Amino acid sequence: MLTAKTCKDTKQLIAVAQNVLAESIPVKYMVPAEMLPPKSQLDVHNFPAQSGLMSPKELQITETSSVDIVKAIANGEWTAEEVTVAFARRAVISHQVTNFATEFLISDALAHARDLDRTFKKTGRVVGPLHGLPISVKEHISMEGRITHGSYIAWIDKISSEDATLVKLLKKAGAVFHVRTNQPQSLMHLDCDNNIYGRTYNPFNRNLTSGGSSGGEGVSIGMKASPMGVGTDSGGSIRQPASCNGVYGFRPTTLRLPHGGTVMPGMGQESIRCVIGPLGQGVDDLELFMKSVLDQSPWDYDPSLVPVPWRSSMPSKNITVGVIWDDGIVRPHPPIQRALRETVAKLKAYGVKKVTFQPYKHDLAWKIISALYFPDGAAAQKDVLAEAGEMLLPLTEWAFGFSHGPLTIAENWHWNVQREKYRTEYHEVMKSKDVDVIICPAYVGVAPEHGTAHYWNYTSVWNLLDHPACVFPFGGVVDPKLDKPEFDYKPRNEQDNCEWKKYCPETFLGAPIGLQVVGKRYHDEEVLAATRVIESALRADNLG
Amino acid sequence: MLTAKTCKDTKQLIAVAQNVLAESIPVKYMVPAEMLPPKSQLDVHNFPAQSGLMSPKELQITETSSVDIVKAIANGEWTAEEVTVAFARRAVISHQVTNFATEFLISDALAHARDLDRTFKKTGRVVGPLHGLPISVKEHISMEGRITHGSYIAWIDKISSEDATLVKLLKKAGAVFHVRTNQPQSLMHLDCDNNIYGRTYNPFNRNLTSGGSSGGEGVSIGMKASPMGVGTDSGGSIRQPASCNGVYGFRPTTLRLPHGGTVMPGMGQESIRCVIGPLGQGVDDLELFMKSVLDQSPWDYDPSLVPVPWRSSMPSKNITVGVIWDDGIVRPHPPIQRALRETVAKLKAYGVKKVTFQPYKHDLAWKIISALYFPDGAAAQKDVLAEAGEMLLPLTEWAFGFSHGPLTIAENWHWNVQREKYRTEYHEVMKSKDVDVIICPAYVGVAPEHGTAHYWNYTSVWNLLDHPACVFPFGGVVDPKLDKPEFDYKPRNEQDNCEWKKYCPETFLGAPIGLQVVGKRYHDEEVLAATRVIESALRADNLG
Repeated sequence: MLTAKTCKDTKQLIAVAQNVLAESIPVKYMVPAEMLPPKSQLDVHNFPAQSGLMSPKELQITETSSVDIVKAIANGEWTAEEVTVAFARRAVISHQVTNFATEFLISDALAHARDLDRTFKKTGRVVGPLHGLPISVKEHISMEGRITHGSYIAWIDKISSEDATLVKLLKKAGAVFHVRTNQPQSLMHLDCDNNIYGRTYNPFNRNLTSGGSSGGEGVSIGMKASPMGVGTDSGGSIRQPASCNGVYGFRPTTLRLPHGGTVMPGMGQESIRCVIGPLGQGVDDLELFMKSVLDQSPWDYDPSLVPVPWRSSMPSKNITVGVIWDDGIVRPHPPIQRALRETVAKLKAYGVKKVTFQPYKHDLAWKIISALYFPDGAAAQKDVLAEAGEMLLPLTEWAFGFSHGPLTIAENWHWNVQREKYRTEYHEVMKSKDVDVIICPAYVGVAPEHGTAHYWNYTSVWNLLDHPACVFPFGGVVDPKLDKPEFDYKPRNEQDNCEWKKYCPETFLGAPIGLQVVGKRYHDEEVLAATRVIESALRADNLG
Repeated sequence: MLTAKTCKDTKQLIAVAQNVLAESIPVKYMVPAEMLPPKSQLDVHNFPAQSGLMSPKELQITETSSVDIVKAIANGEWTAEEVTVAFARRAVISHQVTNFATEFLISDALAHARDLDRTFKKTGRVVGPLHGLPISVKEHISMEGRITHGSYIAWIDKISSEDATLVKLLKKAGAVFHVRTNQPQSLMHLDCDNNIYGRTYNPFNRNLTSGGSSGGEGVSIGMKASPMGVGTDSGGSIRQPASCNGVYGFRPTTLRLPHGGTVMPGMGQESIRCVIGPLGQGVDDLELFMKSVLDQSPWDYDPSLVPVPWRSSMPSKNITVGVIWDDGIVRPHPPIQRALRETVAKLKAYGVKKVTFQPYKHDLAWKIISALYFPDGAAAQKDVLAEAGEMLLPLTEWAFGFSHGPLTIAENWHWNVQREKYRTEYHEVMKSKDVDVIICPAYVGVAPEHGTAHYWNYTSVWNLLDHPACVFPFGGVVDPKLDKPEFDYKPRNEQDNCEWKKYCPETFLGAPIGLQVVGKRYHDEEVLAATRVIESALRADNLG
């Protein structure tokens, strides 16, 4: 149903958003058009360093982890201002080659950074654990006085009256926000394209997607345009872009971090909750984020949250890692298989107990979660799209197609009961196998080609279960010599066939490889601790 | 829609349930019919003691709190068997004058008690913190191998395949189950009548209701037929019967205690969750219950639970108590007003800070929760009633009338959003007033006459907010001299008028007076600690 907004309004609205972006880019940080890499250059992830526009110190700063940045500022070694300038510069250059930003916040960020520097100079103390740390934020997370449209053209006239709760808490901890980032139409693609800004490109291979829906965040961290970022995840939207861009992403258990102020249609749907969480350059960064927020008792601002503080968990080799090699539905691509094999071998050499974990009814998981993603048949989303006469992108159609059609209340309840039953059974299976965490693919392969991210269930199964999950980079990229296609593989079903046919190593040159570590519900701390152990095993030179 | 079950089947089903009850009553414990008080005798609460059928030791045991019973057993002073016998005897006599039970479990209870005694004798140790403690359980909470019908005739053919999760945990802690208790049709009355067993009577005045929906539990604890009981609460169903029977009842925050195995139509409805919780003879008993369960990490059995252990909170006078004298919609009856006035005066004398707390939009609260009780228009309940061609009792019609009609998914979400907004605002109001707990009526008056419990919002507002709430006996009963009707009061609306007209002190002779203490969400421990403080103030002889 089209309402008052005509096509002309639509064009005007798009122009408004595009102008906000264009005018927010400081010209002095921009690379002149003639110095930009040619469109044919696929790998641009190192372009900020190669551009010659960043000083050695700026490169040093932007190649430092969040944990070390806040230390350097707290030591008085670096100022918040110079850190902000370094990341602002890198963010602008990164945007020019990937289109990852929706709005730069650089003058505000610099004013805030200078303010923090003054406070530090006066008191000798930092205001909080994130003092001076630049953080990028996915667009649909509200910022006071700014448009928050969630990639819906019709919502370009919506200006947030206050910061999202999480933004407030990060600010209180001392964070500086320098850039807002892109996301796909409907926020329900593992890809990043919309009718407002267009596509965000993968910096390691611009033929590939940045992932999604937090695709802008994936690029932001992947290009070191920001040391830390905030994304959201209902089906893999933090983890899959983290994997696509060779960085770390964490989907916490729901209701630990405050979700208030996140803008999307269908608020009040509680069968599957969207979760907010961090992306960063390492596990330490993810933990810094979680701890900085939870140490502020967010449940005292948002009574929907569970009052569970961050309980730092010491990494210990004395864990049992369950390995999911294949979910039984879609076979992971060769680079992912290789990463799993090598990781498991290194875990063994490192002395960590690992067992093959038979995935428990992941097909049923998909049946349940696909019913519960859009209990209203995606009417909430479709209405907002129709409001601006907006065309549905193919991956939007694809996601809405998950819907079982509008459900009745009784049907919605039926699927809620199935979800609870499945959660209890999965928990029992993990307990019965004595498995502390599961290691598994973060996606069927590396970053897929634009518009081809169809299979969600390597991440969405954990959304259904509400298990915390961390994606980390295995290290290295697709290697045609090692990652040969399995020509003789016989796909088990249509989905398997569809994903199998997509694999050809040459398509994915340069693409980083990610893996996923998953824990039991509310065992967020153990997931990060286990990821550290797995990384130590990978780095240890103890094979053979 | 009527199904295979015909009226004949219905009669047979009722007969099955009634026979189960009749055959479960040990004849040797029964009071001969001619010794029972006449029907015209309204106050029967002390009949077990007056019957002459209980020994002094049995009376002593049954007049002891749970905390002291488990101590006496752990000291070797009493055996679990003699404790069980004492409560079994008292329960049977109590049932004869109130009709509170649906099934006695005495032979199993005695076998279990003897087993516990043997273990104790052999090891010198108790099996858990509830070793040998008799506990009564509301019928719709599953017990393995027994019918669990939830007061629905159509479900009398349902036999539970396992114990409810909470029953399992209580058993692990050493509890002995001796009796299952009555509840109203649909489980949605603040009263206790159904088509299977009929009405449960208030032992203090049999013209009045036992309250509901955990009315059988209210009587069980009120007559000391059990030292502790398990009820459920979606709108006041633990607290109002506790108040009606002069005992303690606690509605914890949702998802702290496991709800699995509780039988009712409309499972999967998550907008307003039914909560399971204890009734007992004192705050210590309630805390013993909570701690005994939470110390077993129930979240490791039921992953829907929040992993928050019981954090014992020391009672401190250094709290601020907000007083709700009147919710602005329906004026509490004179005995409740008197109880509040006296409590507040004693709090002042005791040195506890108290402030008048302006109830925040309790009318809106009712609008939201009444929409969310039956998002399906009570179709789930009506279907089960229709299955056996069951007549709707007037209070069932009344409760179903709360429904705004069947909601669409979008409407359900709309009300979920309103609920979240209201929770956040209420939390802010409490914070802004520095109020730790609120003291307020537990019901508009004392136990109402049968079939007249119409106004829910003194308890249901806290269900909407998901705030923990404890009902405690103020002490004393309705006093016609002190609690005169307010003839000159001008009711503010139809509901107010309806409740005001019901008050006449002579109607409520002998009825105990209860009050309610409410805390912030998840502040369960503080609610019990504050109730102790309030009780200390009431007991302290420091006025004037």
